[in-house]
Amino acid sequence: MSSDKHTVAIIGYGGMGKFHGQLIRENGQLEVAGSFDLLEARQEASVQAGFRAYKSFEEVLADSSVEVVVIATPNEVHKEIAIRAFEAGKHVVCEKPAAMSSEELKAMIAAADKAGRVLMVHQNRRWDEDFRVIRQMYERETIGALFQIESRVHGANGIPGDWRHVKEHGGGMLLDWGVHLLDQLLFMIDSKVVSVFSTMSYILGNEVDDGFEAVLQFENGIKAIVEVGTTNFIPLPRWYVKGTEGSAVIEDWFLNGRIVTRNRESEQREPAPVRAGVGLTKTMAPPRKGAAITEALPPAAELPDGFYSNFVAVIEDTAEPIVKNAEVLRVQILIEAIFAAAACNEVIKGFDTYGA
Amino acid sequence: MSSDKHTVAIIGYGGMGKFHGQLIRENGQLEVAGSFDLLEARQEASVQAGFRAYKSFEEVLADSSVEVVVIATPNEVHKEIAIRAFEAGKHVVCEKPAAMSSEELKAMIAAADKAGRVLMVHQNRRWDEDFRVIRQMYERETIGALFQIESRVHGANGIPGDWRHVKEHGGGMLLDWGVHLLDQLLFMIDSKVVSVFSTMSYILGNEVDDGFEAVLQFENGIKAIVEVGTTNFIPLPRWYVKGTEGSAVIEDWFLNGRIVTRNRESEQREPAPVRAGVGLTKTMAPPRKGAAITEALPPAAELPDGFYSNFVAVIEDTAEPIVKNAEVLRVQILIEAIFAAAACNEVIKGFDTYGA
Repeated sequence: MSSDKHTVAIIGYGGMGKFHGQLIRENGQLEVAGSFDLLEARQEASVQAGFRAYKSFEEVLADSSVEVVVIATPNEVHKEIAIRAFEAGKHVVCEKPAAMSSEELKAMIAAADKAGRVLMVHQNRRWDEDFRVIRQMYERETIGALFQIESRVHGANGIPGDWRHVKEHGGGMLLDWGVHLLDQLLFMIDSKVVSVFSTMSYILGNEVDDGFEAVLQFENGIKAIVEVGTTNFIPLPRWYVKGTEGSAVIEDWFLNGRIVTRNRESEQREPAPVRAGVGLTKTMAPPRKGAAITEALPPAAELPDGFYSNFVAVIEDTAEPIVKNAEVLRVQILIEAIFAAAACNEVIKGFDTYGA
Repeated sequence: MSSDKHTVAIIGYGGMGKFHGQLIRENGQLEVAGSFDLLEARQEASVQAGFRAYKSFEEVLADSSVEVVVIATPNEVHKEIAIRAFEAGKHVVCEKPAAMSSEELKAMIAAADKAGRVLMVHQNRRWDEDFRVIRQMYERETIGALFQIESRVHGANGIPGDWRHVKEHGGGMLLDWGVHLLDQLLFMIDSKVVSVFSTMSYILGNEVDDGFEAVLQFENGIKAIVEVGTTNFIPLPRWYVKGTEGSAVIEDWFLNGRIVTRNRESEQREPAPVRAGVGLTKTMAPPRKGAAITEALPPAAELPDGFYSNFVAVIEDTAEPIVKNAEVLRVQILIEAIFAAAACNEVIKGFDTYGA
């Protein structure tokens, strides 16, 4: 193990723990010393991957060569693991959702601050290309100023295996995928969320939500719809956005999509009515030929650094974190508002103190 | 004019008035005597179509040969025209929305009842084939029991011309297209609406809405989303529905669409993870090959009769109306709840007395 690399221990060596092992290898500035997992099979998997299998979390904490703890466990133990890691002088990378509640997250942030150590939550989907294409459109007003943003992920496979079915582990799709979609939106839109309405789906009979839809109203007038579904045998587009000059769609993970904008050069003429059901419609007819322009999606907005490169720069005190804890806390508070809105079937307001 | 046909006068000879002239010709059991319109150009158009151009509404009322008045004027004069027609002993076919408010509609219904004459509102989109395909799926549970129904019409042409831009004429898209989509849903779903949330769009700068989205929760557990947009350069599908065994989509007015259902014969295996942005997803991966079945849309549910044939049977007292006034009133009350929900950004409950 070369001494100029930051040494990492991964807590929880399931799917996400292994994924962090890969990410860290690809990054090259950090090195995984080992992992700790309660399950024996995963301890063996760790050894096979060339990592040490710690016998206990205490053994990790006591290993003074370990600078960084990566938390990839079920959600309900993030808080305890993080706080104990900070108390042992480690930095922490934590899987999303960071915590079970905003109160838990505040305690984690306070413990990091007290210890003078770094907490960075793995909100890695800020780097997703589909999101960064939308962010580019938002910032450059490629289709005019965006006023409606619809972000959906639709699958037909139900809730993914094991603990994500269980409420006390922090299961359900709002905490699993919702946290990503909401984080992307709040990262992009520089405005306060003034209200949220939501509905949650329990059609699969789990004690946690198998999907949800939230309608967010921002102070700057933007309306956002965020939807996660696991009972959708036909997916609606990943992104659907409306701007003052046109609309854009990103259909899927492969970035199939297009933008369609008003042709300002074209003669302003009403469209020809089309047959629609038993009636005619001019309102819902396609624009006349030449009145709209279809183009490819613009390139994606860039981020200054990758997740782990940025994390290294932060612990070396040479850069600001791209994923800031205040942002993560804001998303956690929004998630609580979404749960509350669905539970009482009411519009929830006044929870977001952004910009105050 | 053959004496065995019911004689009709059309009030308002714009686009919809002419459309009624055509519908009545096609039906053959009624005959248009003439029309009345305030605009001289439309009086001439009426004469050119082979109809009499009445000089005043009073002249229509005084014409004892006229049995039926068809109202195709702007919305704010429906009530007065209908009530005066009933008082003169005529039956009335009224364009949608029937009235500016549920109070107005109640007055119209009361006047019809008092005069012993028929009021039938032209909710013609109950006959739309796309809707009847969904209705068939709903009734026969082709994709299992439907639990989410999304009904959208998207155009990019703004609000259609003249009076529909003006609030006092009853303009705006909720009253124009919304009334159709809501009427279809309430006609199909035999359950009370327990709550409604909505947002309205004023992005085009008109005093009336250029679109809206409403989320309806029914007592039987169905969630419905109804959306009208006139600033959508890319349309989302006309219908998107989820059932317990699959999903269905109708893309457009041409009935392009499909149903995708779970293959119960297939081995139950988890899907293979796919690359999604900077991560992997199993949850949002497509089902494994063979795990889902794609099929054509089922045929459309049939209605017992066409609009005007049914109307003739109703005035001849040989059939019940397919469009019942209690149903139309319920839609009008729902529209008021949608306006109220958007105005205060709250969930509105307790307005629907259906089944009580």
